[in-house]
Amino acid sequence: MSLKVGVIGTGMIGQDHIRRLTQVLSGVEVVAVNDIAMDRAESAAPAGAKVFETPQELINDENVDAIVICSWGPAHEEQLLACIAAGKPVFCEKPLVTSAESAIRVMEAEVAYGKRLVQVGFMRRFDADYRRLKTVLDSGALGAPLMYKSVHRNASVPEGLYTSDMPLNDTLVHDADISRWLLDDEITGVEVRVPRRSTRGNDLRDPVMVMLHMSSGVIVDVEISVNVAYGYDIRGELSCETGIAALPNRPATVITDQFGIRQAIPEDWRERFIEAYDQEFREWIAAASAGTATGPTTWDGYTSTLVADAALRAVDSGKLEKIEMIEKPALYSAVEKIAAE
Amino acid sequence: MSLKVGVIGTGMIGQDHIRRLTQVLSGVEVVAVNDIAMDRAESAAPAGAKVFETPQELINDENVDAIVICSWGPAHEEQLLACIAAGKPVFCEKPLVTSAESAIRVMEAEVAYGKRLVQVGFMRRFDADYRRLKTVLDSGALGAPLMYKSVHRNASVPEGLYTSDMPLNDTLVHDADISRWLLDDEITGVEVRVPRRSTRGNDLRDPVMVMLHMSSGVIVDVEISVNVAYGYDIRGELSCETGIAALPNRPATVITDQFGIRQAIPEDWRERFIEAYDQEFREWIAAASAGTATGPTTWDGYTSTLVADAALRAVDSGKLEKIEMIEKPALYSAVEKIAAE
Amino acid sequence: MSLKVGVIGTGMIGQDHIRRLTQVLSGVEVVAVNDIAMDRAESAAPAGAKVFETPQELINDENVDAIVICSWGPAHEEQLLACIAAGKPVFCEKPLVTSAESAIRVMEAEVAYGKRLVQVGFMRRFDADYRRLKTVLDSGALGAPLMYKSVHRNASVPEGLYTSDMPLNDTLVHDADISRWLLDDEITGVEVRVPRRSTRGNDLRDPVMVMLHMSSGVIVDVEISVNVAYGYDIRGELSCETGIAALPNRPATVITDQFGIRQAIPEDWRERFIEAYDQEFREWIAAASAGTATGPTTWDGYTSTLVADAALRAVDSGKLEKIEMIEKPALYSAVEKIAAE
Amino acid sequence: MSLKVGVIGTGMIGQDHIRRLTQVLSGVEVVAVNDIAMDRAESAAPAGAKVFETPQELINDENVDAIVICSWGPAHEEQLLACIAAGKPVFCEKPLVTSAESAIRVMEAEVAYGKRLVQVGFMRRFDADYRRLKTVLDSGALGAPLMYKSVHRNASVPEGLYTSDMPLNDTLVHDADISRWLLDDEITGVEVRVPRRSTRGNDLRDPVMVMLHMSSGVIVDVEISVNVAYGYDIRGELSCETGIAALPNRPATVITDQFGIRQAIPEDWRERFIEAYDQEFREWIAAASAGTATGPTTWDGYTSTLVADAALRAVDSGKLEKIEMIEKPALYSAVEKIAAE
Repeated sequence: MSLKVGVIGTGMIGQDHIRRLTQVLSGVEVVAVNDIAMDRAESAAPAGAKVFETPQELINDENVDAIVICSWGPAHEEQLLACIAAGKPVFCEKPLVTSAESAIRVMEAEVAYGKRLVQVGFMRRFDADYRRLKTVLDSGALGAPLMYKSVHRNASVPEGLYTSDMPLNDTLVHDADISRWLLDDEITGVEVRVPRRSTRGNDLRDPVMVMLHMSSGVIVDVEISVNVAYGYDIRGELSCETGIAALPNRPATVITDQFGIRQAIPEDWRERFIEAYDQEFREWIAAASAGTATGPTTWDGYTSTLVADAALRAVDSGKLEKIEMIEKPALYSAVEKIAAE
Repeated sequence: MSLKVGVIGTGMIGQDHIRRLTQVLSGVEVVAVNDIAMDRAESAAPAGAKVFETPQELINDENVDAIVICSWGPAHEEQLLACIAAGKPVFCEKPLVTSAESAIRVMEAEVAYGKRLVQVGFMRRFDADYRRLKTVLDSGALGAPLMYKSVHRNASVPEGLYTSDMPLNDTLVHDADISRWLLDDEITGVEVRVPRRSTRGNDLRDPVMVMLHMSSGVIVDVEISVNVAYGYDIRGELSCETGIAALPNRPATVITDQFGIRQAIPEDWRERFIEAYDQEFREWIAAASAGTATGPTTWDGYTSTLVADAALRAVDSGKLEKIEMIEKPALYSAVEKIAAE
Repeated sequence: MSLKVGVIGTGMIGQDHIRRLTQVLSGVEVVAVNDIAMDRAESAAPAGAKVFETPQELINDENVDAIVICSWGPAHEEQLLACIAAGKPVFCEKPLVTSAESAIRVMEAEVAYGKRLVQVGFMRRFDADYRRLKTVLDSGALGAPLMYKSVHRNASVPEGLYTSDMPLNDTLVHDADISRWLLDDEITGVEVRVPRRSTRGNDLRDPVMVMLHMSSGVIVDVEISVNVAYGYDIRGELSCETGIAALPNRPATVITDQFGIRQAIPEDWRERFIEAYDQEFREWIAAASAGTATGPTTWDGYTSTLVADAALRAVDSGKLEKIEMIEKPALYSAVEKIAAE
Repeated sequence: MSLKVGVIGTGMIGQDHIRRLTQVLSGVEVVAVNDIAMDRAESAAPAGAKVFETPQELINDENVDAIVICSWGPAHEEQLLACIAAGKPVFCEKPLVTSAESAIRVMEAEVAYGKRLVQVGFMRRFDADYRRLKTVLDSGALGAPLMYKSVHRNASVPEGLYTSDMPLNDTLVHDADISRWLLDDEITGVEVRVPRRSTRGNDLRDPVMVMLHMSSGVIVDVEISVNVAYGYDIRGELSCETGIAALPNRPATVITDQFGIRQAIPEDWRERFIEAYDQEFREWIAAASAGTATGPTTWDGYTSTLVADAALRAVDSGKLEKIEMIEKPALYSAVEKIAAE
């Protein structure tokens, strides 16, 4: 029995997820599609899928078992609340919502429903390299973690469209979420430092250096550079009491030629995380088929909005900006194991 | 519309393929199962699958679209011929058959049928590392290949059950097949040298060093060691006219501790090639759904038997043992591109 | 004609330099020795060397061309001033002196003398890995530097003797000096963060994270960990506008065994920097033979005291501690090229 | 007391050794020089060195303690015999002599003299990477060695001047010598295979693949490629019973840019082995100052001529060419430890 999925939002990422759900993964079929642009929805809909005029109709259709939300951020809250009201599992792309208050409303609804229905699209948690890193840390062989260095480098960003707040609003949330997950810890404060700017960035605040203070005392040191020209380079290194654990080089062919002995760097996030996206949905399908959700929670989406807000404040203040959270609902406290690979 | 598959042989590898076809991959379902041990077939059969008493009945059942053969080698010829007679696509685990004459009979049947139906289970061709290596070579950037060094190391082999001919019969075929595929070339002769023996192997002829002479003049130099204790280590390095291309380290976490800066080595072939097996079947499902086969051919299975035979002769003679082949049927000459990853 | 050298201070480091000057390097001989413990001086003195009762006598002896100071820090100022008064080149181990005021007095004397006589013992500048890193940066191929990550890890520190200020007083000066040299830049402020403490350190403030703000805007991010158990691990990574340049792994044998594929980490600073010390003295001998000094200057020693002081203040304040310097004497502004290796 | 050295032959390598002995190393001075071209000798002679008209006069001059022979190969025997007759330590560049018979005559003279006087210029034995590799092997941690893969790649060779026998005559001797030293073993036979030729080599027999059969049964597999374009690349990998040990990448800066994550390859042998040459002479000076020789022996030079001869025969025969040696004089059997680094 396949999981029957409706997809809301058929832009670039929505189309990619439709491809994934129909061509790559098993146990799932896309039966419904919606977009604010009907023609885009129609051209994106796989054979046999019904195109709905509104998200609400799609969510409530009895043929739809579970929903994938790829619409733009400001529309998420209403769609999420509708899914929860319908008691249907939902995968929601980042950002979960666009304010802490909005996230709290979604959490309240989910808590009231009584079990998890929402999985947020932090795909790095499904990446094999990060999972192996966490397995090493969790083994305890290296002692407690003390510092984590996270590096996030983009080859380039679209000129004109990209603003100085985006590295903190859109990129930092990945480093923040993966740090929380890896360390099984919560962020209590954020500092931002702005080093010498790259001349490649047209007055962009680039790079930025962010320090995330974790409740355990661990400091996470994040470099975000969005114009490095050479590729998409994601690095992570954990300093523990008796050893270091780091993400490996990507497994590109080792070439020796006039440029030295070398391995290629991924061009972009699609190349880097394609398998993580597949695995993310593989696990979502399993949970949604059981009527619930696993992986990144509404709480995780909530903390992301807090971290991004604090980072933006920290740019202005130059100081440590503390993060104040509501009490964590018990629903989001369950320890989850990484599914065996 | 899912491809309806029948699996013949439900031992360890058959069970693993059933798991793969039912839990990992899309567009496929296992509808039929057979094994010489009925009870084993019954316990391996997924819900809803029919258990057949004979391979012949399974193959001919009208509900079965395509067949996966995981029985033992001596049974393959008859099962393959039955599949071809039924006009059904078939995936056949190694060895294709157990003699060159047998392989020729299967080829004759397939050629008579007029299009490819058989894919042989050389899963390395589907491994991402090997595919990237081939992409580098085929780009021409490094000039023509001149030598290839292939290394195949096993942690250990089952004492008592393992004989000195097995590295040449069962292991060398992988290095030979991947060399032929990588270089797009044919093997014309085989030499074997036996270095100092490992004391870990109880009189086993281990390691062995094999030279494959390719028709282009390329020499492939193979080290097969089956008792290295430390893990399952597969290496490959191409020497080309203006550069070298090699398989990378596996992407294990980079740990720095009292043992140095290090990456773990896979324990066994399951860990090393699990994704290659998935990809192998993904492509088989696509081709079988179209009523044909891609990937490793009956011809590739035929050449494997010739290489293994020549290698065993070469141990005794100490000389270059030439390989004489029948003329290659046109059916097997089509150039196939690697599916975009 | 060999350079005739007198060595003041024959403790561990003094003895090691005597070994180096007599057994490893050419163009030099040790003709004089002094120590506060006469018997230690006598046992350390090579054959034919005269043992002096006071530093002053050694410095002024007409048979002594140049002096190596390995006494303890508080004695350095008087000895340096005596060398300058005598117009003799002098190599001075770290710390140059123990206060900024003291450093200024030495600079004033050297400036009054009119040419450089003092080389300070920052040996990292002579390390081949750092020199290659600087060559890459100076080539301009990667654009301007924006951030530098420096990592300094010690296996362990002597219990009881080691205090929480030592990482900032004794270790940070190396990272600070190498950053100034690598970037050809000056430090304008220092911040210190104290992450979760290692339980291996008995209440030690360990690790510490330091940010050095350079006048160009580059931020240098330093991790100092002094109890990592696994070895002595020095890392450096420059983020530039169009690429990254980093210190390589040490060239230890690549071993593949039950611990993975791995390279050993140096045990301590002696193993790591032995060749840098040799090269440091090789260049000192060349300059001293010409009656002057090259390499790290009195100014570099002066800035080191300022950085260490600022770092200690920053621990207490939790803020950015600015560094105020006197105007840089012209004597110390000359650009010096790395000697061709 | 410095060792007073006379240098015979002031071509490129002779001039480089004069530079090394006068500018880099301690405990030595060049007091005498000779060359078949007097003007070349005069311009190469350091200040204060005497220029001799004949090798014989230089060797016998009472002011000369030890001799460095850098003349061409055919002149070596007579000069070596003169050194031995004079009882003076002598460093002799490769080739020791040009025939096995000639080598035997030199051995007989040295044996008659009663102690070692000759060190042959196999500088790889002094390279830190090879020494660490040998230390790992000798530790026994990986069990007995079974195979050794040696790779020797040159960027290019001088067109017109370079012949197909040179890789076997001039290059293979390095791989052969280092294999004998590393494995503490003797070569009993040689096979040569000629793979597909590089089109970069103008009909040159390039690459060649050589198998050295050691008396222990170890097989050494050598790739010699002399036109790889990209640089000078020396590799070595030992397959032992429970693990692998290999030469590391050279410690070039790790650059990440548009060409990937990469390390430069040395351009030529000077860059690769400059420190090995220094160390080679450092140890020679120590031994020669004590009136004797350590390091590679006359016996090692003798075996080199046998290996090169066998390799050339093996090209023609296509077979295993056995090596027959005279009985090894006891003088050359002493076990020597690597000097502590």
